[in-house]
Amino acid sequence: MSETTTGRAPGRPRSERADKAILDATLDLLARESGVAGVSMEAVAARAGVGKSTIYRRWPSKEALIVDALGAAKAPLPEPSGASAREDLTEIARALAAERGRRHLQCFWNVLGSAGRYPELYARYKKDIIEPRRAIVRDVLRRGVATGELRADLDIEVAMSMLVGSLTPRRPRETFPEGYAEAVVDALVKGIGSARD
Amino acid sequence: MSETTTGRAPGRPRSERADKAILDATLDLLARESGVAGVSMEAVAARAGVGKSTIYRRWPSKEALIVDALGAAKAPLPEPSGASAREDLTEIARALAAERGRRHLQCFWNVLGSAGRYPELYARYKKDIIEPRRAIVRDVLRRGVATGELRADLDIEVAMSMLVGSLTPRRPRETFPEGYAEAVVDALVKGIGSARD
Repeated sequence: MSETTTGRAPGRPRSERADKAILDATLDLLARESGVAGVSMEAVAARAGVGKSTIYRRWPSKEALIVDALGAAKAPLPEPSGASAREDLTEIARALAAERGRRHLQCFWNVLGSAGRYPELYARYKKDIIEPRRAIVRDVLRRGVATGELRADLDIEVAMSMLVGSLTPRRPRETFPEGYAEAVVDALVKGIGSARD
Repeated sequence: MSETTTGRAPGRPRSERADKAILDATLDLLARESGVAGVSMEAVAARAGVGKSTIYRRWPSKEALIVDALGAAKAPLPEPSGASAREDLTEIARALAAERGRRHLQCFWNVLGSAGRYPELYARYKKDIIEPRRAIVRDVLRRGVATGELRADLDIEVAMSMLVGSLTPRRPRETFPEGYAEAVVDALVKGIGSARD
């Protein structure tokens, strides 16, 4: 019970392969039309080619399994180098813009779409996956204000929300053009107005 | 066949009531876990208390019905007054920020989540609902560049995407704080950096 929820132990390649197959099967099922409702321990076990007990040994519930699968599907946000707010925001923006696999987006929308029916799942997703990422962006913005690179009157939540929102795909198969992440940070830092008022 | 797809005729209140009940029933069904798959002419007719033929008289397919229902659920974007890019963007931002009914968001996510399975539905939704709204934002931005209020080197698509993205709810029951729409436009126009480079 002291294991992390992903439960990967070093030096156990067979078990790691099983974990990977389980998480992958979870995402395959979650991406389908049936969404969260179509994910069950039985279905995941069948698809991953493992016994149900192998799943239950690591994940006590389907909610825990889905949250870990979604977490594993997202590349971790880069550790900001701290060189400048602009460079840090650009690194983060590039990482966000790169998160556009079709399966991953379908999973994301399906979790959002069924949040009313699976509030615990959504709460865990938000706490374990969304919030830590938002915290990284907030820290970069706060440091930028502290160093004077960003406006002293900056609303951190608004700026964070604008960066993340600008880089969240809103359409299936949406592809951001080359240089989009950099252009977003540029527009955000400099503003789209022609002059300061 | 020369009717518009919503097919509302003036002076026919009973038929208008039926239309409203049909569109409302469509959204109720679409917002459910089953999403697009759970919307059928039969289910809509039963829920709206009308005969299936009443629906087919106006909507030839479930895709057409869903797109009209989604269109009716969104308040039209305000016609920009043209006073200034900043004022126009603020009006639009307020309208976007106001679109946060829970049912509407569930419908939106369910349509996105099932775009792979219902590509025609998604294409119509994009063409009839998303694109006209984006066009309004682009026009405002282009006028702002033409008048010199916005930067001459502005990337219209990037700016449009940032405005819309910043105001698209990314979480169920997300509530934007009072003044959020105005703060987004302010940050977008002036930038979050402390000085122009």
